[in-house]
Amino acid sequence: MKIGIIGGGQLGRMLALAGIPLGIQFRFWEQDRDCPSSDVGEVTVGSFDDHSLIENFIAGLSYVTYEFENVPVALISAIARHVPVSPAAHALEICQDRILEKETFNQLQIPCAKFLAITNLTDLELALTDGFPLPAILKSRRFGYDGKGQARIASITDAQAAWQAVGAVPSILEQRVTFDGELSLISVRGHDGDVRFYPLIENTHLSGILSKSIVPSKLVTTALQSQAEEYGRRVLKHFDYVGVLTIEFFLVAGQLFANEMAPRVHNSGHWSIEGSETSQFANHIRALIKAPLGSVATKGHALLLNLVGEIPDQNPILAHTGVFLHLYRKSGRSRRKIGHITMCKEDLRSVDETSLEVHKLIDRYLQF
Amino acid sequence: MKIGIIGGGQLGRMLALAGIPLGIQFRFWEQDRDCPSSDVGEVTVGSFDDHSLIENFIAGLSYVTYEFENVPVALISAIARHVPVSPAAHALEICQDRILEKETFNQLQIPCAKFLAITNLTDLELALTDGFPLPAILKSRRFGYDGKGQARIASITDAQAAWQAVGAVPSILEQRVTFDGELSLISVRGHDGDVRFYPLIENTHLSGILSKSIVPSKLVTTALQSQAEEYGRRVLKHFDYVGVLTIEFFLVAGQLFANEMAPRVHNSGHWSIEGSETSQFANHIRALIKAPLGSVATKGHALLLNLVGEIPDQNPILAHTGVFLHLYRKSGRSRRKIGHITMCKEDLRSVDETSLEVHKLIDRYLQF
Repeated sequence: MKIGIIGGGQLGRMLALAGIPLGIQFRFWEQDRDCPSSDVGEVTVGSFDDHSLIENFIAGLSYVTYEFENVPVALISAIARHVPVSPAAHALEICQDRILEKETFNQLQIPCAKFLAITNLTDLELALTDGFPLPAILKSRRFGYDGKGQARIASITDAQAAWQAVGAVPSILEQRVTFDGELSLISVRGHDGDVRFYPLIENTHLSGILSKSIVPSKLVTTALQSQAEEYGRRVLKHFDYVGVLTIEFFLVAGQLFANEMAPRVHNSGHWSIEGSETSQFANHIRALIKAPLGSVATKGHALLLNLVGEIPDQNPILAHTGVFLHLYRKSGRSRRKIGHITMCKEDLRSVDETSLEVHKLIDRYLQF
Repeated sequence: MKIGIIGGGQLGRMLALAGIPLGIQFRFWEQDRDCPSSDVGEVTVGSFDDHSLIENFIAGLSYVTYEFENVPVALISAIARHVPVSPAAHALEICQDRILEKETFNQLQIPCAKFLAITNLTDLELALTDGFPLPAILKSRRFGYDGKGQARIASITDAQAAWQAVGAVPSILEQRVTFDGELSLISVRGHDGDVRFYPLIENTHLSGILSKSIVPSKLVTTALQSQAEEYGRRVLKHFDYVGVLTIEFFLVAGQLFANEMAPRVHNSGHWSIEGSETSQFANHIRALIKAPLGSVATKGHALLLNLVGEIPDQNPILAHTGVFLHLYRKSGRSRRKIGHITMCKEDLRSVDETSLEVHKLIDRYLQF
């Protein structure tokens, strides 16, 4: 069996590493022949807009998925006429547009911060004079990630700079909520409607890029987990979703506010490779190939650190037990995620202690 | 960093799956372009005797290793003039020849069954009339695996048939010991001489092919583990070994008798992917690249079942928690290892129960 993946970054790479043990082969569609996924499958090299490549890409594929959400919906729809694609194009379309995303949250009665669609600078200035609650944040409606295409607004005098900062494109104005924590819910839904939820993950961002994830989180009660799962269930059912879906929440005075969702495996879930009975990658593959989903029970406590910008010296890291280094074979570059470290221990104290030791080794790779 | 592996079977495949997360790329030398390892690296296609391929194979490689022991020593020696090769050619040479292997055990005072070199039928008949203890087994000195090139001898009347059965080639006549169990010791030695031992594994063979491995084994006492490690340490030091080495023992009245050794990762150690803090594959890679060895602590109880001949229906297997299916992307063929299943549970009883359930699903794949 061969699976096609649109995109050839580290997520594609880790999906393949989870699928190859089942005898599955992979093909990636990616502009860069030497992409991180090229170590674990064939690469169809070219632009996502070049539909003349579809025939070659889909030859011999049983299923297709994608590893990031900025794939053109038109491409997914075109491929889906020949090969089953999960998650379906409709979910992708919604997740690509912050306004449609937030409207979906509203429709499903999932709380989120106040927001407003902005199509030009006048819209923005009007909204701010009209009493839109401040502080706020302006984000491009589409193609934002890792904090790109975002600008903070403290007062109306910031409007013009913010509009330029997001690239003067259709945007969303969002109230900036003061949160006690950022949590992500990774869920997976099988072809038969079976649904599993990983425990809520506590995330810390630095300069808009995920820096650290912890699971289980001290912020999370049983009630909060149930609430998140209820929201997750609504979204999964709404889309008749197949595969892994991630919802990011703000924790505001004990309540969950949905921030955004991603129709794919998620950086905050990389700890699941070692820390869960079945990783997010393995479960996405299982959903795709119509296999039963695997247990999402966690093995102890896990802490994930992203490596950004520069590749650290690996031997001091590998010398630690329960510490797992992952490098994506990317060259080092400012603000670029080049790998991650997962610490996995039976108890929280051990994770904390190990984390302090590992931080000493990689501290400068966390500064960006 | 790129590592070259001679051979492109499932062992190469699993070595690469352990190395890719560290950002390492792989190249395999293998006759079959579509070999199991081809999913996880480049393939230099050709015969091991074609030294004109060496230049292409080694281009850009930092280290070279091999994934089975029937690689020509001349090839390893030739490559070692350009790129570091581990384990070294000398260890390979000894492991390829059952007489040299047994002589090494003798030299290192590691007990093994009585044996004699046989170069022709007359040798064999003489040995048997001369009182060589029966029953015995005749094995070709070289290129034997999975019970191939072996014939049992109950009396002198079996001599001629046995000699023909092994292919009328230089052979070893061994006393057949009555054993209480077959145990394997997987060891790893780092570039700095650091040595780690996995717990002794209890193995069951069917028709000469490994069928089942269990760890920890009820047959193994602390004293037995220490004794095995002492023997292992002697061999590793003797060869100034770098990488994973496996020694197979018979357990005879509480004593270990060395049967054979393999200068590589071993089928009986596949459970270590899920059942050990660091798998045999990951530790072999660590030894190769001069990284610190990883912990070999086991996670609970593990049971490994080999899948031979035919690919089973995967979904019923995947429906079990703590059960891990591995398929090597080989077509089904009589007596061919096409995959394995590892069961990994916290306690022995759970492993036994799960094993019974899984056996029901795959029983016919264990008959060969």
